[in-house]
Amino acid sequence: MSEHFLQVPEWSWNHPVEDEPAYVHHWVKPLHEMEQPPDLILYGAPISRSSISVSGASLYPSEFRRMWKGFATYNLDEDIDLSTFQVGDAGDVAMHTTDILLSHQRIQKTTAYLATHYPTTRTCMIGGDHSTTACAVRGIKEVFVGEKIGVLQLDTHLDVRDPKELGPANGTPIRQLIDGNIVKGENVINIGLHGYYNAKPLINYANEHSIQMVTLKQARKLGLIETIKGALKQLSEKVDRIYVTVDMDVLDISVAPGVPASTPGGMSAIELFDSLLEIGKHPSVQHIDFVCLDPSRDSAVSETVKIGVYAWLQFITGCINQIRI
Amino acid sequence: MSEHFLQVPEWSWNHPVEDEPAYVHHWVKPLHEMEQPPDLILYGAPISRSSISVSGASLYPSEFRRMWKGFATYNLDEDIDLSTFQVGDAGDVAMHTTDILLSHQRIQKTTAYLATHYPTTRTCMIGGDHSTTACAVRGIKEVFVGEKIGVLQLDTHLDVRDPKELGPANGTPIRQLIDGNIVKGENVINIGLHGYYNAKPLINYANEHSIQMVTLKQARKLGLIETIKGALKQLSEKVDRIYVTVDMDVLDISVAPGVPASTPGGMSAIELFDSLLEIGKHPSVQHIDFVCLDPSRDSAVSETVKIGVYAWLQFITGCINQIRI
Amino acid sequence: MSEHFLQVPEWSWNHPVEDEPAYVHHWVKPLHEMEQPPDLILYGAPISRSSISVSGASLYPSEFRRMWKGFATYNLDEDIDLSTFQVGDAGDVAMHTTDILLSHQRIQKTTAYLATHYPTTRTCMIGGDHSTTACAVRGIKEVFVGEKIGVLQLDTHLDVRDPKELGPANGTPIRQLIDGNIVKGENVINIGLHGYYNAKPLINYANEHSIQMVTLKQARKLGLIETIKGALKQLSEKVDRIYVTVDMDVLDISVAPGVPASTPGGMSAIELFDSLLEIGKHPSVQHIDFVCLDPSRDSAVSETVKIGVYAWLQFITGCINQIRI
Amino acid sequence: MSEHFLQVPEWSWNHPVEDEPAYVHHWVKPLHEMEQPPDLILYGAPISRSSISVSGASLYPSEFRRMWKGFATYNLDEDIDLSTFQVGDAGDVAMHTTDILLSHQRIQKTTAYLATHYPTTRTCMIGGDHSTTACAVRGIKEVFVGEKIGVLQLDTHLDVRDPKELGPANGTPIRQLIDGNIVKGENVINIGLHGYYNAKPLINYANEHSIQMVTLKQARKLGLIETIKGALKQLSEKVDRIYVTVDMDVLDISVAPGVPASTPGGMSAIELFDSLLEIGKHPSVQHIDFVCLDPSRDSAVSETVKIGVYAWLQFITGCINQIRI
Amino acid sequence: MSEHFLQVPEWSWNHPVEDEPAYVHHWVKPLHEMEQPPDLILYGAPISRSSISVSGASLYPSEFRRMWKGFATYNLDEDIDLSTFQVGDAGDVAMHTTDILLSHQRIQKTTAYLATHYPTTRTCMIGGDHSTTACAVRGIKEVFVGEKIGVLQLDTHLDVRDPKELGPANGTPIRQLIDGNIVKGENVINIGLHGYYNAKPLINYANEHSIQMVTLKQARKLGLIETIKGALKQLSEKVDRIYVTVDMDVLDISVAPGVPASTPGGMSAIELFDSLLEIGKHPSVQHIDFVCLDPSRDSAVSETVKIGVYAWLQFITGCINQIRI
Amino acid sequence: MSEHFLQVPEWSWNHPVEDEPAYVHHWVKPLHEMEQPPDLILYGAPISRSSISVSGASLYPSEFRRMWKGFATYNLDEDIDLSTFQVGDAGDVAMHTTDILLSHQRIQKTTAYLATHYPTTRTCMIGGDHSTTACAVRGIKEVFVGEKIGVLQLDTHLDVRDPKELGPANGTPIRQLIDGNIVKGENVINIGLHGYYNAKPLINYANEHSIQMVTLKQARKLGLIETIKGALKQLSEKVDRIYVTVDMDVLDISVAPGVPASTPGGMSAIELFDSLLEIGKHPSVQHIDFVCLDPSRDSAVSETVKIGVYAWLQFITGCINQIRI
Repeated sequence: MSEHFLQVPEWSWNHPVEDEPAYVHHWVKPLHEMEQPPDLILYGAPISRSSISVSGASLYPSEFRRMWKGFATYNLDEDIDLSTFQVGDAGDVAMHTTDILLSHQRIQKTTAYLATHYPTTRTCMIGGDHSTTACAVRGIKEVFVGEKIGVLQLDTHLDVRDPKELGPANGTPIRQLIDGNIVKGENVINIGLHGYYNAKPLINYANEHSIQMVTLKQARKLGLIETIKGALKQLSEKVDRIYVTVDMDVLDISVAPGVPASTPGGMSAIELFDSLLEIGKHPSVQHIDFVCLDPSRDSAVSETVKIGVYAWLQFITGCINQIRI
Repeated sequence: MSEHFLQVPEWSWNHPVEDEPAYVHHWVKPLHEMEQPPDLILYGAPISRSSISVSGASLYPSEFRRMWKGFATYNLDEDIDLSTFQVGDAGDVAMHTTDILLSHQRIQKTTAYLATHYPTTRTCMIGGDHSTTACAVRGIKEVFVGEKIGVLQLDTHLDVRDPKELGPANGTPIRQLIDGNIVKGENVINIGLHGYYNAKPLINYANEHSIQMVTLKQARKLGLIETIKGALKQLSEKVDRIYVTVDMDVLDISVAPGVPASTPGGMSAIELFDSLLEIGKHPSVQHIDFVCLDPSRDSAVSETVKIGVYAWLQFITGCINQIRI
Repeated sequence: MSEHFLQVPEWSWNHPVEDEPAYVHHWVKPLHEMEQPPDLILYGAPISRSSISVSGASLYPSEFRRMWKGFATYNLDEDIDLSTFQVGDAGDVAMHTTDILLSHQRIQKTTAYLATHYPTTRTCMIGGDHSTTACAVRGIKEVFVGEKIGVLQLDTHLDVRDPKELGPANGTPIRQLIDGNIVKGENVINIGLHGYYNAKPLINYANEHSIQMVTLKQARKLGLIETIKGALKQLSEKVDRIYVTVDMDVLDISVAPGVPASTPGGMSAIELFDSLLEIGKHPSVQHIDFVCLDPSRDSAVSETVKIGVYAWLQFITGCINQIRI
Repeated sequence: MSEHFLQVPEWSWNHPVEDEPAYVHHWVKPLHEMEQPPDLILYGAPISRSSISVSGASLYPSEFRRMWKGFATYNLDEDIDLSTFQVGDAGDVAMHTTDILLSHQRIQKTTAYLATHYPTTRTCMIGGDHSTTACAVRGIKEVFVGEKIGVLQLDTHLDVRDPKELGPANGTPIRQLIDGNIVKGENVINIGLHGYYNAKPLINYANEHSIQMVTLKQARKLGLIETIKGALKQLSEKVDRIYVTVDMDVLDISVAPGVPASTPGGMSAIELFDSLLEIGKHPSVQHIDFVCLDPSRDSAVSETVKIGVYAWLQFITGCINQIRI
Repeated sequence: MSEHFLQVPEWSWNHPVEDEPAYVHHWVKPLHEMEQPPDLILYGAPISRSSISVSGASLYPSEFRRMWKGFATYNLDEDIDLSTFQVGDAGDVAMHTTDILLSHQRIQKTTAYLATHYPTTRTCMIGGDHSTTACAVRGIKEVFVGEKIGVLQLDTHLDVRDPKELGPANGTPIRQLIDGNIVKGENVINIGLHGYYNAKPLINYANEHSIQMVTLKQARKLGLIETIKGALKQLSEKVDRIYVTVDMDVLDISVAPGVPASTPGGMSAIELFDSLLEIGKHPSVQHIDFVCLDPSRDSAVSETVKIGVYAWLQFITGCINQIRI
Repeated sequence: MSEHFLQVPEWSWNHPVEDEPAYVHHWVKPLHEMEQPPDLILYGAPISRSSISVSGASLYPSEFRRMWKGFATYNLDEDIDLSTFQVGDAGDVAMHTTDILLSHQRIQKTTAYLATHYPTTRTCMIGGDHSTTACAVRGIKEVFVGEKIGVLQLDTHLDVRDPKELGPANGTPIRQLIDGNIVKGENVINIGLHGYYNAKPLINYANEHSIQMVTLKQARKLGLIETIKGALKQLSEKVDRIYVTVDMDVLDISVAPGVPASTPGGMSAIELFDSLLEIGKHPSVQHIDFVCLDPSRDSAVSETVKIGVYAWLQFITGCINQIRI
């Protein structure tokens, strides 16, 4: 019998690697320890001082990883074991404390670095506020210069406020990309818009640049999955790669206390889960991000972060289904 | 270049009027500054000491106006710009601190005053608890003496408890109106009832006075919009004007932390929004109120007040659609 | 006129019995005061120190009774007055402070005692954590030795972790019953499973023992009520009596803050209510429990406990409908 | 061995009376069951709709009784067993739902009733808001017509706002008593005033009527206990009986989340405890009340209600020490 | 009798000016409406994206003004009516959304503007995070070029982290001023330091630059007021004007939930109030700021903001006492 | 210039060891990596299912370590750099899920193991509930068989409830030790008792066994530090080694939301800090524990855990001061 019963305190990556990892934190591996390019690279962009209103979304990458311990790698609904899929965690982009432009450049450069060294691996960026999306897409464009990039945006807002007025804030990324000739407005589809959350001048900009606005009401009438499928099909016929950006404020306020900008009338968690399953299946979707979730505002049971991890696993489930085809 | 960068602190009505107001607080105007009767008059009835259980619904009118800054005047779902519709804010009815009957009389008199001076303008009262509804309807009856008034009530409760026992409390308004011969029971339709929240004797009263009780289950089976439409059609054929009273406790407890009397099994926010859009469209609906929302119990992100403002904007959207026809 | 206006403070069972009780706390009676066996016996099993993670579910029986004052005995949706149905409250099983095995034995013995003395009365146990279910089913088996017992489980988890590793913890009850030859795996149907909350080895155990796993996604596709009906029909053809266990973590995290193990993607309150109405109707359902609700984690308005009481009343409504047939 | 282990659920007064009660809820007895007049009568005045701002102080009498279960009858600091002192709980004054004047009259009449039938017993009223104090003092004056009553007030506020403006609201009781010739201003001593919480006109009223204002700063300089002693000595030399009113908003905001009107700079809990010990010792103190504590705003651990019960027990400890002398 | 009872909704500056203002919001006037230079100018610097950790201190100026309605202009402890002292509110410095340097420059320029146009008026800046202090002091230095400025800092931290590493973040203002030759280290006195909140290298920097570090323990031993007096005396003998910066994290964590960086062992509210009374009395104190209070983290009763307003009023009380001399 | 900016996510022990560690998490080292016996061994006993009322104190060891990142190793008050003192973290004792006796044995055995292998090193156990203290002291007694052990207890409660009734619950440890002849009652000194929190029979037990009860009131009168010193002196003259147990419920409820059993009238944080500084100085104090802190109940800013870490660092500061002598 053992002389003592000491065990190491529980930290994330210290656990012995298991052959058949049953939980997410045993499954995801540090990127630099992997010998082969993984199927998906995860990296964090922990900045939210670029947010128009106060935001702690910079805390999301850490909290996202902390909460994934509560998830098994087995998806019961789809009868799929995720553990055959390789996920490499590249860590977080180091942010400067007060130089927002410099921090944004680092996100762009780091994204370019990953795209250069892992050109066929899907990337998933965990924000951070929505300003990070513009950086990431520019980083990708830097590497795949000649390619057309399409953006599927799940969002309550258009995020086309004027960077000339605000600088590269979280309300501006889509406009940064369009005005910067990185993405054409006609190759942006926003699904999730609703209610009274986009002022008229922003609608005008969107119309002038042919951004496709699909309200939740329209999507629900047609069927949300059908709408997602249609959007991906349309984009994939026009562009070379699709970047999906999930602004977590697309969720209804009743399920997303951790997203200060969430509103009544938004997506249910299940609608988000179904959407991401579908998105993961499409082979043109090479990049995805999840932004604007502020864990410091989440409920006591971390409801929103749990939805965030679940949504990400749905995307991976979709990826696996696609790979099987 | 400017010598300094001072700007006035942000208050609601101090902002310069804009030609094309993009946000609600730039759009709503003080009634006394308007030269023409507006399309809708808003007024507050900040009393809740008449509530059976402790309530801070008296705080709702102020909080309602404070939160509307977060809403644009553009409705994306319906592609309607509300800013052409004129809303005049008449302010709040001054309440006495301890004389409930006097406060109730003031609500009645003020409603009558508005109905006299703006006979063709729709009115919207922001409560306060549900006792205010009896006052408002009496005020309207005072002006439109010969007219029949119908009441469409969205509510989890019948609110027909006995004023002889409780006085004019928030559980009694419908009974006050029926027993006071202001409204006939057969001209009251309640949609939203469900579950175990009305004791048998109240059901008996409702049946004896032919109040039409439509449970949420029945409404959902038929279609909530169809049910609303049918109720308005039926009422409009029997009465001269319809008063709609929205007790916010009709909402499900999971979306309405700010309504202490909300219960499991209630309306979703979207069901409420769809209902109010439909209600706004009907030309017989001349008066509406929203009652029983206690902002001091709301969640940290003011979820319930946001639903309240959204619902009110849906009603206005409906009004505009009706006016267009 | 009265000389003073003193009234006794409000306690639960001190109220004079009323002939036509309008509220639940006037209707439920202490079992030991009843002359006839009631239609349903309620008893509490207030233990949660057997829970893997920290739980205050031991507080649920008390809080359940405290909150039922807010419920009328009249079900408006089904137009049924529950007050003709007799409910006897047997009180709580006395728990030991630190001897978990002893406490578990007491639950078993008490359940056996009730089953012996009230062999034709339905029983309803209010947990406590899920470890109590194994005790209760063993107690029933003790009395109805020759009968086959089937289990309908509404749960996000399989609860088949290994008692050899954990002892009789809340993650193990179904496995305790199968390994202990109390219930056959093929006579267990779990409805409510979803997402990433059951590790692969547990799925393997379930498959090896022929537990029927019905995901929420499958149930929703077929229709939840149809699924419940089918499960009850199937079980009733194979077993002599059905034990229903409702792990409240089957509820979606957005409606169940008081269940620390609830997750995104779970049942809505209305889905739970509809399920219990259906379950109550089936004559083979002789025993039910509700477990794992921790009132100390509930929201300020006791949302989850209110759902718990409502669900229990739905079950009783079902029972009455069945009895009428 | 016992066949079952059922025990009755825990309610307050159902417990068998114990010879040597160790906890408060075993010690306090219903007044109507006592054969001898007790040493202290407790009664509740559950009204707070007379409060200027929203208040749930009407819930305090119930919560006060619910929380006293956590207190032993043994005072370790003073080495005194309270259980020899007899406390009779008279229950609560029945309040009308909307007729504030009627409710106030009932408090007055009930207090008079108790003073008539138990003329030598100390009374302790649990409010309710501060308007109840005026009612109680009037009730006492009704019975002891020829006696002079002095008031020792522990309060952050003077509570001399004008009842002609507000009616008998919680900001007015001291002025009601002075203007009504029940108590002379010179026989009112307020200890606990501080900061910026009394507008100039109220100070003027107090000065005109010779109310003695002792700021906390002054009291602390002299010594709080010395100040209390001095005030009681002075009053007892001028009046026949002393009524002590403890507005719980005298507590510092950091220890009294359950008193919405508490402020920074107020009393610490220990200062309040020491004061009440001293107050209890004085034989002229025949009546006391504790008002304005709103349990619905209290912290999750009921910090303020616990302070309220503790303070009350300190008063009783003081009474025992006095009796011994 | 009045025909209606409408009153304007309550906003801050819309109230008619009163001759003898009894409450703070009736007393403070917009600077641009004043004909004479006031005794004190208040202005807000609403920026906190320069904070190392997430902060909503940018919301403080608005919340500060919103909460001052709860304060009378009469100080009972000191028997002083503040309303004879003139306070002009200059509004807030307009901040850029993402350009932190530009925002900082605007604070500096605006402070210089105020110092130029109101050279003999005391200024009070409401932050914002602590980075604003460096801007304000530079702005003052710009105007009073030849003068020596001393800094009295009430703070748990030294705030001398290296701006070369962090940029002008909230951890760096004192070092910015010293390294920038605006203030000499020997003319900085920090009172409030304690515990384990300043790493060794920062202590080393402070020692190298002769910053005077007074721990709370030392100050309490000597007497906090004596310590403050001594510090002011010493500084006034060496410099021409004293700038006082109050980092609200000097408060103990138990009274300052709204200051994320507050710690155990900090100042009590009363210690802070006494300190500011003393500080206000000293004629060399020409400038003060209050920083790092994040209202979005405050308790439900806004405890910390109330302490903030109270502390500011104490400073003004001190100023009046000084002027009288 | 770097090609990318990736950094590893922040975990506790992965950081490179620093020569002069400035923060606690860089300073504490895993015990098994140390070549020399450290000055102090830290280990966790994460069990709280032995608590009478629901407790999450089992979560404290993890949370304690997570929060120590916010503390520097430099103590400003005492001008001491802790980093020269060696602390080895031995990890946590592995607990069984449901077998409380087995878990208790493991704590005992592990403590004995550490005492055997590091006989001259001070140990510090982080609980867990108070039942762990009995286990630890028994473990020490096992190793130092012939030595007399004295216990200094900082606690609101005596914790001498009867283990024959409750088993080895958190209310019983001192009685377990006395009845088990591990420690003599006369060698137990409890400082911190106050108010109404120990029922008479427990006082009787304490008196019968000569436990020295020092109330907070007595201690404050004499001086808390003098009291502590006197107790340590007295014990050290009678016993061979002193075990100090700090039940965090000794703290006042206003500073310890994370200790459900904390009460009004308890110690302030500063009183606790001063006590531990003194305790650390005494050479006979070889063992200490901190128990009963439930982080899941703590405030949003983790106030109580921060106090816990601070108190522990004070103890270490004391140790260093002692060693220097």
